[in-house]
Amino acid sequence: VSAPLRAWIVASGDELVQGRNVDTNSAWLARALLELGVETERFLVLGDDEPALCALAQEASRSVELLLVTGGLGPTLDDVTRHALAAAAGVELDEDAAALEDLRAWFAARGRPFSESNARQALFPRGAERLSNALGTAPGFLLRSGRALVAALPGPPREMERMFQDELRPRLERALPPRAPRCVARFFLFGLPESSFADRCGEWMARGADPLLGVTAHAGVLTAQLASSSQALLDARVTQFRERFGEWIFSETSGDLGRALGEACLERGITLATAESCTGGLVAERLTRLPGISAVFGWGCVSYANAAKQDLLGVEAALLESHGAVSLPVAEAMARGASLRSGARLSIAVTGVAGPGGGSETKPVGLVCFATSLDGVLQSTERRFAVRGRDLIREFAALTALDLARRRVLGR
Amino acid sequence: VSAPLRAWIVASGDELVQGRNVDTNSAWLARALLELGVETERFLVLGDDEPALCALAQEASRSVELLLVTGGLGPTLDDVTRHALAAAAGVELDEDAAALEDLRAWFAARGRPFSESNARQALFPRGAERLSNALGTAPGFLLRSGRALVAALPGPPREMERMFQDELRPRLERALPPRAPRCVARFFLFGLPESSFADRCGEWMARGADPLLGVTAHAGVLTAQLASSSQALLDARVTQFRERFGEWIFSETSGDLGRALGEACLERGITLATAESCTGGLVAERLTRLPGISAVFGWGCVSYANAAKQDLLGVEAALLESHGAVSLPVAEAMARGASLRSGARLSIAVTGVAGPGGGSETKPVGLVCFATSLDGVLQSTERRFAVRGRDLIREFAALTALDLARRRVLGR
Repeated sequence: VSAPLRAWIVASGDELVQGRNVDTNSAWLARALLELGVETERFLVLGDDEPALCALAQEASRSVELLLVTGGLGPTLDDVTRHALAAAAGVELDEDAAALEDLRAWFAARGRPFSESNARQALFPRGAERLSNALGTAPGFLLRSGRALVAALPGPPREMERMFQDELRPRLERALPPRAPRCVARFFLFGLPESSFADRCGEWMARGADPLLGVTAHAGVLTAQLASSSQALLDARVTQFRERFGEWIFSETSGDLGRALGEACLERGITLATAESCTGGLVAERLTRLPGISAVFGWGCVSYANAAKQDLLGVEAALLESHGAVSLPVAEAMARGASLRSGARLSIAVTGVAGPGGGSETKPVGLVCFATSLDGVLQSTERRFAVRGRDLIREFAALTALDLARRRVLGR
Repeated sequence: VSAPLRAWIVASGDELVQGRNVDTNSAWLARALLELGVETERFLVLGDDEPALCALAQEASRSVELLLVTGGLGPTLDDVTRHALAAAAGVELDEDAAALEDLRAWFAARGRPFSESNARQALFPRGAERLSNALGTAPGFLLRSGRALVAALPGPPREMERMFQDELRPRLERALPPRAPRCVARFFLFGLPESSFADRCGEWMARGADPLLGVTAHAGVLTAQLASSSQALLDARVTQFRERFGEWIFSETSGDLGRALGEACLERGITLATAESCTGGLVAERLTRLPGISAVFGWGCVSYANAAKQDLLGVEAALLESHGAVSLPVAEAMARGASLRSGARLSIAVTGVAGPGGGSETKPVGLVCFATSLDGVLQSTERRFAVRGRDLIREFAALTALDLARRRVLGR
């Protein structure tokens, strides 16, 4: 019997297959499995349907070496994963005395009554190993079914992720063969359209290339991944990649531009401030996701109205009157005001037309003006974002502001 | 041959099955199909794998009446959907002259060169109906394959959704039988844990109940859906539902609390301002997602540092010194300052410990203080959110702030 190399991932729940919730567990697990050298062939999403899940588990154990199932481990009758996987493996369900004791203790510790339906969560397919749930009541389990290993994990992502890391991953690492070398490097780029990217390196993306380059785009951020069978091949291509795309790479570890800017400022001790109009707080929100950012960021404002631009940033009424709120001079005055008021070395200002209303011939929806001030030196620029909805214009504007500020910090 | 009633939905793409992107198209389509009376049995996510997709399409056309496939319609060799679905239906691919003409025109209009690989996008399985793409280059198609209708849609969600609404939905409506009545009502609640919700109405959620109540939770917001075979039964239960849960229902149309607050203010002409510390702009960001919010919202600040609380909001140093930044007196002073500075009738202030650092025995991570001021009348309260990470604490804090303000506006 060969050890696991290929996997199917199943998510179970009426709320998923009816489209009320989106299954994010499967993508998370596919990434985690890839790190273990296991390739996922397919995801499946099913309702709370015992016969369908049983049939699928039987098909999986004939087709692949590993099956992961999330969801359907709750205490109610529509939680069918335990029963379906036991039936697929051709074994009975047994009540586990230790698991039952843990469940009773969990409820007692929270002063909540233990109902008999919860005892269902102490049932396990005969021969299964129990996986403890550090964050909830539903234990998971791991069993062998034919040639496949089958694991059941809870549906809530936090519980699932914790159980995978603490309980399942170590067991899979023991069960898996030493994996084939797979060397990976990642790059996160901003400001380059996906098509321009492909034009510059199409030959690196051809099927069979080693290293093989893949790219995905999300809200203006490109994630490029190089994967190779050899570290030497990978290293050479990484060097070429940095030469070709260094201008746009903002990180090799995270796709979070707020983090990239925040870390650049923290490393250099550069304090910063934000002055936002059309982004409505999004720039500050992205920055403050980073723990410890308070060491360099303390002051931001959402000067949505002209009066607020005057009051909070000292933008002069005459300037607003003559150029309009969406203009380079006003963006510059906002950045200058933010620096003066906050005392920060670096400030970022954004003002634009997010739409859907408020556009004009000279100031159309999608026009956004940016200014940065670093140690008193102003820079400003404008962008016209394609009109693809208010949310996307705000998102692109916020990311552009973060990137412009990051380039100032790095002296680019 | 019966008309479509049950569907499978397939998403195709290496970036999906490798977990680099999350498939949201399938959930969107499942909801759209439910409105047409079609129940989705399963979603599948596959890589760019022509034989696997072909085999799956053949299995689907034996199992269900409708198969929707998203992705794999691009111009490159790893876009295999056209070839796989033609093979599954046992037909050839033909080049469509009109589609080719449209493609050339699309590129010409954008001043971009038309490469021969793009001609691939003018290939269609023989007998297929072309579905136009208003937002991109990849046309979709609809064909009959065995007893099933099979539709191919592009992968980018905007293009997919637009093509479904404009091109596919009308064709499906003509092909489908008059659907069984399915009456639906939805409610969005905040502030009630999911378990408490279930304790209060478990009998409405039992399998086979009509109306049947389902509930999902996401970041503190509960979405409850009642579905019934009869409008009269539904109406009666809706009345009961409102009586039992009115205190927590913030909308019957949208799960967006920022929108609920914004609309309540717009309806009543109540101006508002925000003063945020630990949420770092998230409250303002949520509010400003709503188009037209500038009529009532013009002033917000992110007073992350104590100095900013003094400068932007006039919070006294002595107050910060004696109570600490995370305290009800400081929250109240922030709200008072925001009202005074902005002139808004309503202000919202948030100050708390988002972690992971910065907690103490008396002010632990997860402690957040809120204050609102409406026409000069202050109210304040504190919450201790379970420590489930910085992001969730910020998210819960922002939603709680929006809900507290909404309750003030509604006089609750």
